[in-house]
Amino acid sequence: MTNKMVLFDRLALIGVGLIGSSIARAAREQGVVKEIVATARSEATRKRVAELGIADNVVATSAEAVKNADLVIVCIPVGACGAVAAEIGPHLKLGAVVSDVGSVKGSVVRDMAPHLPAGVEFVPAHPVAGTEYSGPDAGFAELFVNRWCILTPPEGTSPEAVERLAAFWRSFGAKVETMTADHHDLVLAVTSHLPHLIAYTIVGTAFELREVTQNEVLKFSAGGFRDFTRIASSDPTMWRDIFLANKDAVLEMLGRFSEDVSELTRAIRRGDGDALFNIFTERRAIRRSIVALGQDSATPDFGRPHPGLPADTLPRPYADKD
Amino acid sequence: MTNKMVLFDRLALIGVGLIGSSIARAAREQGVVKEIVATARSEATRKRVAELGIADNVVATSAEAVKNADLVIVCIPVGACGAVAAEIGPHLKLGAVVSDVGSVKGSVVRDMAPHLPAGVEFVPAHPVAGTEYSGPDAGFAELFVNRWCILTPPEGTSPEAVERLAAFWRSFGAKVETMTADHHDLVLAVTSHLPHLIAYTIVGTAFELREVTQNEVLKFSAGGFRDFTRIASSDPTMWRDIFLANKDAVLEMLGRFSEDVSELTRAIRRGDGDALFNIFTERRAIRRSIVALGQDSATPDFGRPHPGLPADTLPRPYADKD
Repeated sequence: MTNKMVLFDRLALIGVGLIGSSIARAAREQGVVKEIVATARSEATRKRVAELGIADNVVATSAEAVKNADLVIVCIPVGACGAVAAEIGPHLKLGAVVSDVGSVKGSVVRDMAPHLPAGVEFVPAHPVAGTEYSGPDAGFAELFVNRWCILTPPEGTSPEAVERLAAFWRSFGAKVETMTADHHDLVLAVTSHLPHLIAYTIVGTAFELREVTQNEVLKFSAGGFRDFTRIASSDPTMWRDIFLANKDAVLEMLGRFSEDVSELTRAIRRGDGDALFNIFTERRAIRRSIVALGQDSATPDFGRPHPGLPADTLPRPYADKD
Repeated sequence: MTNKMVLFDRLALIGVGLIGSSIARAAREQGVVKEIVATARSEATRKRVAELGIADNVVATSAEAVKNADLVIVCIPVGACGAVAAEIGPHLKLGAVVSDVGSVKGSVVRDMAPHLPAGVEFVPAHPVAGTEYSGPDAGFAELFVNRWCILTPPEGTSPEAVERLAAFWRSFGAKVETMTADHHDLVLAVTSHLPHLIAYTIVGTAFELREVTQNEVLKFSAGGFRDFTRIASSDPTMWRDIFLANKDAVLEMLGRFSEDVSELTRAIRRGDGDALFNIFTERRAIRRSIVALGQDSATPDFGRPHPGLPADTLPRPYADKD
């Protein structure tokens, strides 16, 4: 608990889902803000946030939430960021830092920046962290530990504001990197948006087969399919907005992916075992690098739990015999 | 430990990788065999198996291993099964049950059956379980708990032999289902082979980009990409053989998958948010069914470990201030 300090007096969170509620929990545990004001569009969420006690104050509107706030973080689907910026713009405190957590940065800058008044510092952010669950109950303070948070400050943003927000994220155990919004959107198109789109696709492919029942797909999913269903169970609104907001980069990546599928398809059709073996060997090595960089666990099977062996599973004819 | 009984006096394992060594460990822990004889093609593996002590006897050849064995399980890549069957055929004990653990069943039946003499029962099997690791050290006795083991006995196989092998797998906590080899190959093409092929593909797509560095792909892989790298790090020989052996079903699934990619691509290109939202919502539900069936954990993020919050991460300018 040494060296802990307040980075922002009042934090306003607009939206308290998985990410917003994780920020609230981490900021309080780390003591980097004095006070947390939260709001959410739905009354049910506001009620739940109040019950959870993860904010000091839960208010009904975004305009009310940002009053006197030193840091405002908009934690909502990217498609809704422009409207929220328009609503909060006139109510922001002079000198406040405004940020977000959206998975697309170009559209967020385009939609939010015009509504933010002079004297406010805009530092868009994207913590590359999450789970497949949503809502205020899904968050936890450790979500950002060892994960990257990418900042994409527009030109002219005060370096002091950027560094202060970076310190805020580092206090949660995150690592911070700064890049342009456009580069961010290209990088995330391949590390996040394309994988999600492919996962959503393959789940559909499996479930629309005539020859294989849905029950068979579910039962035998441990062969690999179940890994894809996890990211295909993320929040649909969030992902709809991401694909619409990062359309160009996603379409570009989809085009390249389809070419690469064709390459492997051709190798299989030709029965080219050497090509397959070489491709698989090369790609196998990549996971080791991810584990070495601390971006995934080395535990087999992601660390999925394995229950113990059964005490008695032998069917009658065998169980009776001996 | 009640009701435990010996199902087969002598078990011969040909191949002692992840699956073979897990069978050895589980069979011994459950006491369902009296003696385990193991062999492996490479001397290094045989030496390691002897060191691990997971078999009673390690021998140099498959022919030697199967002598007097009551159950022979071939645990090697499917492309090598035919040659092993030819080698062991003349040495099998009358009344022995011969099985395997291959991920493709049609080709295994085609390659092995002609070499197995009359008086031997052939019951091909596929335990739908595994991790991304390989080799005798990777196995563990609990690998098959709650997983399905699919048996594909050819017509004319003795029901008693099928039931005895089923009891063997059930004693490891596995659930057993019987189907034709052809149907197995179609089901697994979609629940396992297609997901692996797509995972191998996307890892390649990400790593061949000019605009995004490999280091960026690794660093920001927590956005979804890292999930794919796990199954793309499975054994290359095993997977080469699977795609060659189940070529027709895999190509059929790839064709359908590509059509489904086109459908989503079109929705993104048109900016059709309603279509995307509806597709994502429908597919999200599928994971719940898999969790409800006990085929995956409900723990967020597969249960990946989350280290605790840092005690002190504030950078100098901030850490000094307060």
